[in-house]
Amino acid sequence: MEERHDLKLKPIGIIHSSYKNTGAAPYQGCRSEEISQIEVFKEFQDGLKDIEGFSHIIVIFWFHKSQGYHLLVKAPWDDVLHGLFATRSPNRPCPLGLTVAELITREENILRVKGLDAIDGTPLLDIKPYVPSIDERSVIKPGWLEGKLGKERC
Amino acid sequence: MEERHDLKLKPIGIIHSSYKNTGAAPYQGCRSEEISQIEVFKEFQDGLKDIEGFSHIIVIFWFHKSQGYHLLVKAPWDDVLHGLFATRSPNRPCPLGLTVAELITREENILRVKGLDAIDGTPLLDIKPYVPSIDERSVIKPGWLEGKLGKERC
Repeated sequence: MEERHDLKLKPIGIIHSSYKNTGAAPYQGCRSEEISQIEVFKEFQDGLKDIEGFSHIIVIFWFHKSQGYHLLVKAPWDDVLHGLFATRSPNRPCPLGLTVAELITREENILRVKGLDAIDGTPLLDIKPYVPSIDERSVIKPGWLEGKLGKERC
Repeated sequence: MEERHDLKLKPIGIIHSSYKNTGAAPYQGCRSEEISQIEVFKEFQDGLKDIEGFSHIIVIFWFHKSQGYHLLVKAPWDDVLHGLFATRSPNRPCPLGLTVAELITREENILRVKGLDAIDGTPLLDIKPYVPSIDERSVIKPGWLEGKLGKERC
């Protein structure tokens, strides 16, 4: 079945952060003041043109410390088993991480960002501009996380 | 350099939609009433437990019709070349698509969703719950897209 073939990716950069291992990263980074550096490899630098106009970017990365997964997991917010895809666990069949980060500055191929919860050395896969009219929704049910994370947006 | 190694992914499902080719899909699906079906392969079905509590999910997929990329691109919204990473173009070094979709129903391993702009046959890579306190930001600059997409959230 063609749809089950392996797909191949090559990182476009690497994330440098003060979180040196998985235990050190916050569960979600958006309330942290920590600054991380996203190094986009030089050959992709031209693709960053105009990114500095955006206050926030979507960073997609590879959970390189992820080792296997379980389909039912406990999350930090309660003591109940939930389906993996109803959680943000880093241990997933496709170990893709996704964080909306605040873009502080860009210098050539280096982006300084706030609110990124990736650990040091994380392979960078993609950057997309964060656009409220595309990425936000007005009426939301937050499932089993209702009341567990607070309602404040970052 | 280890960080430039190939990374391998296997799809966890497939997207069935009425958009039969790249020209048919809307630029962003969130204002469309079209219903798509996400088929999560049976072996991952247990990972969907509790997903039906969420009104919206983040769908990450593989742009399987993407063929190569340019680092400077024109988007549908103006006639200026922008850096690829400051656009949502499907033609990217890592061809990863990302859409917040409204979850209508789940039946076993099939999710019916609204607002997904992926074309028929798109490989599914990941599903994450959409959580406003994690995924939304309160103060935003939308870069070169300012005034081009409207301000209304979906």
